[in-house]
Amino acid sequence: MAIEGRNDIAGRPIRLGMVGGGRDAFIGAVHRIASRIDGHYQLVAGAFSSTAEKSKASGRDLGLPDDRIYGDFTEMAKREARLKTGIDAVAIVTPNHMHYPVAREFLKRGIHVICDKPLTSTLPDAKRLVKLAESSDALFILTHNYTGYPMIRQAREMIANGEIGRIRLVQAEYPQDWLTEPLEATGMKQAAWRTDPARSGAGGSTGDIGTHALNLAQFVTGLQVEALAADLDTFVEGRRVDDNAHVLLRFAGGAKGMLWSSQVAPGNENALKLRVYGDKGGLEWRQEDPNYLWFTPLGEPKRLITRNGAGAGEAAGRMSRVPPGHPEGYLEGFANIYTEAAAAIRAVSAGEPVPDDVVYPTAHDGLIGVAFVDACVRSSKRDAAWTRLAI
Amino acid sequence: MAIEGRNDIAGRPIRLGMVGGGRDAFIGAVHRIASRIDGHYQLVAGAFSSTAEKSKASGRDLGLPDDRIYGDFTEMAKREARLKTGIDAVAIVTPNHMHYPVAREFLKRGIHVICDKPLTSTLPDAKRLVKLAESSDALFILTHNYTGYPMIRQAREMIANGEIGRIRLVQAEYPQDWLTEPLEATGMKQAAWRTDPARSGAGGSTGDIGTHALNLAQFVTGLQVEALAADLDTFVEGRRVDDNAHVLLRFAGGAKGMLWSSQVAPGNENALKLRVYGDKGGLEWRQEDPNYLWFTPLGEPKRLITRNGAGAGEAAGRMSRVPPGHPEGYLEGFANIYTEAAAAIRAVSAGEPVPDDVVYPTAHDGLIGVAFVDACVRSSKRDAAWTRLAI
Amino acid sequence: MAIEGRNDIAGRPIRLGMVGGGRDAFIGAVHRIASRIDGHYQLVAGAFSSTAEKSKASGRDLGLPDDRIYGDFTEMAKREARLKTGIDAVAIVTPNHMHYPVAREFLKRGIHVICDKPLTSTLPDAKRLVKLAESSDALFILTHNYTGYPMIRQAREMIANGEIGRIRLVQAEYPQDWLTEPLEATGMKQAAWRTDPARSGAGGSTGDIGTHALNLAQFVTGLQVEALAADLDTFVEGRRVDDNAHVLLRFAGGAKGMLWSSQVAPGNENALKLRVYGDKGGLEWRQEDPNYLWFTPLGEPKRLITRNGAGAGEAAGRMSRVPPGHPEGYLEGFANIYTEAAAAIRAVSAGEPVPDDVVYPTAHDGLIGVAFVDACVRSSKRDAAWTRLAI
Amino acid sequence: MAIEGRNDIAGRPIRLGMVGGGRDAFIGAVHRIASRIDGHYQLVAGAFSSTAEKSKASGRDLGLPDDRIYGDFTEMAKREARLKTGIDAVAIVTPNHMHYPVAREFLKRGIHVICDKPLTSTLPDAKRLVKLAESSDALFILTHNYTGYPMIRQAREMIANGEIGRIRLVQAEYPQDWLTEPLEATGMKQAAWRTDPARSGAGGSTGDIGTHALNLAQFVTGLQVEALAADLDTFVEGRRVDDNAHVLLRFAGGAKGMLWSSQVAPGNENALKLRVYGDKGGLEWRQEDPNYLWFTPLGEPKRLITRNGAGAGEAAGRMSRVPPGHPEGYLEGFANIYTEAAAAIRAVSAGEPVPDDVVYPTAHDGLIGVAFVDACVRSSKRDAAWTRLAI
Repeated sequence: MAIEGRNDIAGRPIRLGMVGGGRDAFIGAVHRIASRIDGHYQLVAGAFSSTAEKSKASGRDLGLPDDRIYGDFTEMAKREARLKTGIDAVAIVTPNHMHYPVAREFLKRGIHVICDKPLTSTLPDAKRLVKLAESSDALFILTHNYTGYPMIRQAREMIANGEIGRIRLVQAEYPQDWLTEPLEATGMKQAAWRTDPARSGAGGSTGDIGTHALNLAQFVTGLQVEALAADLDTFVEGRRVDDNAHVLLRFAGGAKGMLWSSQVAPGNENALKLRVYGDKGGLEWRQEDPNYLWFTPLGEPKRLITRNGAGAGEAAGRMSRVPPGHPEGYLEGFANIYTEAAAAIRAVSAGEPVPDDVVYPTAHDGLIGVAFVDACVRSSKRDAAWTRLAI
Repeated sequence: MAIEGRNDIAGRPIRLGMVGGGRDAFIGAVHRIASRIDGHYQLVAGAFSSTAEKSKASGRDLGLPDDRIYGDFTEMAKREARLKTGIDAVAIVTPNHMHYPVAREFLKRGIHVICDKPLTSTLPDAKRLVKLAESSDALFILTHNYTGYPMIRQAREMIANGEIGRIRLVQAEYPQDWLTEPLEATGMKQAAWRTDPARSGAGGSTGDIGTHALNLAQFVTGLQVEALAADLDTFVEGRRVDDNAHVLLRFAGGAKGMLWSSQVAPGNENALKLRVYGDKGGLEWRQEDPNYLWFTPLGEPKRLITRNGAGAGEAAGRMSRVPPGHPEGYLEGFANIYTEAAAAIRAVSAGEPVPDDVVYPTAHDGLIGVAFVDACVRSSKRDAAWTRLAI
Repeated sequence: MAIEGRNDIAGRPIRLGMVGGGRDAFIGAVHRIASRIDGHYQLVAGAFSSTAEKSKASGRDLGLPDDRIYGDFTEMAKREARLKTGIDAVAIVTPNHMHYPVAREFLKRGIHVICDKPLTSTLPDAKRLVKLAESSDALFILTHNYTGYPMIRQAREMIANGEIGRIRLVQAEYPQDWLTEPLEATGMKQAAWRTDPARSGAGGSTGDIGTHALNLAQFVTGLQVEALAADLDTFVEGRRVDDNAHVLLRFAGGAKGMLWSSQVAPGNENALKLRVYGDKGGLEWRQEDPNYLWFTPLGEPKRLITRNGAGAGEAAGRMSRVPPGHPEGYLEGFANIYTEAAAAIRAVSAGEPVPDDVVYPTAHDGLIGVAFVDACVRSSKRDAAWTRLAI
Repeated sequence: MAIEGRNDIAGRPIRLGMVGGGRDAFIGAVHRIASRIDGHYQLVAGAFSSTAEKSKASGRDLGLPDDRIYGDFTEMAKREARLKTGIDAVAIVTPNHMHYPVAREFLKRGIHVICDKPLTSTLPDAKRLVKLAESSDALFILTHNYTGYPMIRQAREMIANGEIGRIRLVQAEYPQDWLTEPLEATGMKQAAWRTDPARSGAGGSTGDIGTHALNLAQFVTGLQVEALAADLDTFVEGRRVDDNAHVLLRFAGGAKGMLWSSQVAPGNENALKLRVYGDKGGLEWRQEDPNYLWFTPLGEPKRLITRNGAGAGEAAGRMSRVPPGHPEGYLEGFANIYTEAAAAIRAVSAGEPVPDDVVYPTAHDGLIGVAFVDACVRSSKRDAAWTRLAI
């Protein structure tokens, strides 16, 4: 309940490069803010667009010197690897199909990679990237940013501590409404690449947001989905990927679940929601009001646990900056992934193991996401037949 | 916004009998209160228990004279049909397996039946009851009480008026938590019969609450479920019926849906919720906060329509008693079904057609519910294979 | 958490008369529904309007025989007192200025009075009525209906049990918006008499709703307001009574408070809200969502106590009819006052004392309300000077 | 509804110094994060503590070189003013009584000041500081951070556009619970200085949070408080300043209001709330859920306007970084003040006027806050007599 801040200890900032994220991009700016919030990074280089001209303009907007702005990511990887004060890490914020080729260039040169999700646009690429990441000395961090929310860490900790008992049910949903109409036909860039299978992958809502919901469900519960039955739809005429997915889930160990992702549900801005029920209690969390976690111990009144408030534990406290009642949001959750990554990068740079309490999504988590999209598409083609989520 | 009440016009009360609903019952008392709220009924007779002793005691509690308290529903039907001031209508509030035999005795004697849901415990009984109801001069009203909520009527009217466009998605859920532990093993009566297939039917959560969710979805949207894929579970050891159901829905005309019913989700008291999304907007309603309807016209801010408040229409107004901000609840919603039934009974008694705006669930609606349970059980046995909801 | 109903034990219904409450009235219909819900009363007579014609028409609407419909309340009192099966009790639902003269006629003839609030339109009348009530064999029940809400009883019980410690702060507010514009100028009846000092009293919002807020604050906390400082306003031009009141409160024992009543606050339908803070915890309750009580024990997470749910106690349980998650509302809360009154009337009729757990607002409570309005008006005239709430 | 980010254009970062904000401080870390979020500042120097040792340690934590870490703010001002790449601006985050002396040293050397609130601990200091700020070439920005919230800007814009008509009522409240017990007696640093009149000023809750509520009320409505009547309390024994304030407000032009600040209201973490009602509509906003603004146009359903969502305008859009449904919070709101300050500093540095749409709280706003505390204390001493808020 006390008003006390978190110390923001910096040391030498990690030198960060960026691939993608030029003018008019969405997620690039988010990564940049996330990298700045805790002061662990400094953006020093980038290939912000595949068009050299646009990359240059974007880099200058960001105050970078011309010789650190690249029109080509391979060139960037090569040169930065040679520079004395070259980048320590690169943020990849391109459309999905470029994640693998870009990551490869940097990983193989020992540059840490912080990559947006989903991992790749195809399953083979995902498998290759996992291998690459595992064999590289550099770290690979996937920004399944919702795992950075303090109350998600709180829920995970409570479940690990047995506070809701043995898990029976996992209800995950992620409805949005921004693609209710054929926005991609209007030339809107964010809609265009997200609905283009060549750039985004075979999944639409499944890949763009369903992967988040799945990842969150597994992250919080510690359970793995074994099989799924998916009914995918494309409600908007002419759209080339799913814009709605209804999915039944079966977890290893016997828990069951539902997952709903949609981009055509008017009134839902970004309504990711996770509910987990065990034989001793239940937990509920909503992304749009992320500072709250509802906890019901069976047979007792529902409790509202707040970030940094009474009842919040160590795992959430590590991820918080300000006292309860001072809401943190999406960008702080995202920044938490960057800050975990910084801790890992610094440990590795110092030749030390990554501390146990530092947690971030990995290439393997990303592979699960891509396999999820693949399984959804295959299940749906076979009339929602049960399909194993094999990795 | 004005403070004005609804006139409560009575005329001669309808003479009501009751079968079931003795001491310690739940739904019998609810029906009695519902029948009293608008003053259209007077309880004058009953067979409150299959044990004559208990029936007598219960009837006396209710102030009935001994000669109108019966130990046997057949005897009651016979005698009341002969009495000059015998009952006009009977409320059937027994466990499910008795609905059909009881209804038969009264319907065939021209006594109107107001029957609790689900219609019957078996599909054959349901089909027989529909035939009987269709061939009887008496009316058959099924208390799918949630259709009596004013804001449910509001949602139905708005959808019929095209306010959310063509429907794409129907998300229905009905989680509870009261059977998280094996309450039936403690001798608790309500749990015991509800988990006994012989008395309740083959479905557990599907029959007890899933039917409500399905009925509401169809009532509000005007769409029919064509097929479903159901994954039923019994999480509590030793329980003989499902206590959780995950169901995918396909509606005639192309809309898709999900239905979740559960009695093992801690933190959910009676959390029936319906969300409907069309290509022009969305609607959301929660039973536990029934005076609110969320409406999002695509591209505009979300609006909170309140019972009798600004933006609420005629269909909801008919079902309201007090001004906005004065919450009506479960019992008033239930009473609305009784009041619709009274209007229908009075019309029929006067030899007139039931007015167009009088709406209540019928035996046919009940048959759909029983067929739903049947289809869920069959689908689940075939590993959630798609199963037609054939009637 | 179990699904069990409350037994509705009746016995011989109490014969009820009504004064006021004719066609187009608001609160008369509410009283009638409230009297029916638990089956303790039967409406058998009434003087529904001061116009004989209108009284007759209203009585017939309600199914009463002509010889029990009166055009004059004095005639009604006289005749009903003489009838063998005359009324046991009368509900007074006239404009405020008639409460005293009507109550007098019935009280002095030993007929119990259930009277709407505020007690009277003037302080002298209120004092006279208290004396009369105290000296009468008949009971006087004031329908400060909000005290009938189960979670209000819950809050009162928790405070009495010391669960929030010594009370420091009481924040009461009751904003509405229905008089934002000069509705009384349109001929709207409810607005007309409520803004007419001759019929309503010197207070506008203070009398109509401020008295409810004050009564609730005192009922829940058990504390008495000693002095107040009130800043009253009439924002709508031409209005003759206050439509907004800002009041500072000082309670005996040192607690402090604020009370805000308003009828010109757009977006507030009937937003009565009470918050009480002690040195060990806090409680919050909102009339528009009456089944919830927020409880924060100091240093612990906030808890949501629900009607009949986990954590709800005996005082709330007595006032509940249906399981948690099945919302009860305004009419049930109102009915609880009628049911408490029935218990008291039956006890008195049987020559027994009123049971300890039967609680209802009295004439004395009503006097406090009228004194509150009087003190507000006097304080406001002296520029919000502190004014004792002397009784 | 589209997913598009805000461009984060930087240019040369503004060189920032800090006075106060050493280890264990709260607001210093907040200022540092706020300064980083949009990339407009780089922290290059500081006097983080009045103890040279602690200042050094804190500065090193933050990665500063020793020669830019000072043990004394005067020395810092002198040296930084002389350095070629000395600081452009200084953030003052000391206890209140130091704001004036520190600001003076920097302002008189032409270094821009970004100062925490309240402006000063005494009214004479506040008046001196305003004069100083007005006569200085450097800018003075006061971090009444809540004015940086996008939906506060939205509310302000809507009111200026007349969307709720002529304002009648302003209900402001700011309850907290962290000082319910005598935390200052435990040695907790944040509690200690905030309850010490010498460091904090004559007001407790009034100064610490009441000033925020007042500032927000005036900022959003554009109205000035003319007079107030305040009832201050100190509920915790031994505390030397108020921990609760009940205040009546009168605005120029006839609007009325209430302001409640409290630090002893269990269950309230940081529950700043503003409600404004006019003759055409109402607005409601809660700091703990800052991405939502409730808007009720009179006679229409309540609408939920969300940050960057449908219905949000230009003023809020300027202050947003991410799409609707991706919550921004306290730190982003705080960062918005820093970003407005950056725009102003850059304009002034370029010899240009500050753009019209750049808005931040000034020394004059701060003077109003200090005068508010002074008036509250004086009013309360005279038994809540009306006291002019004279400046």
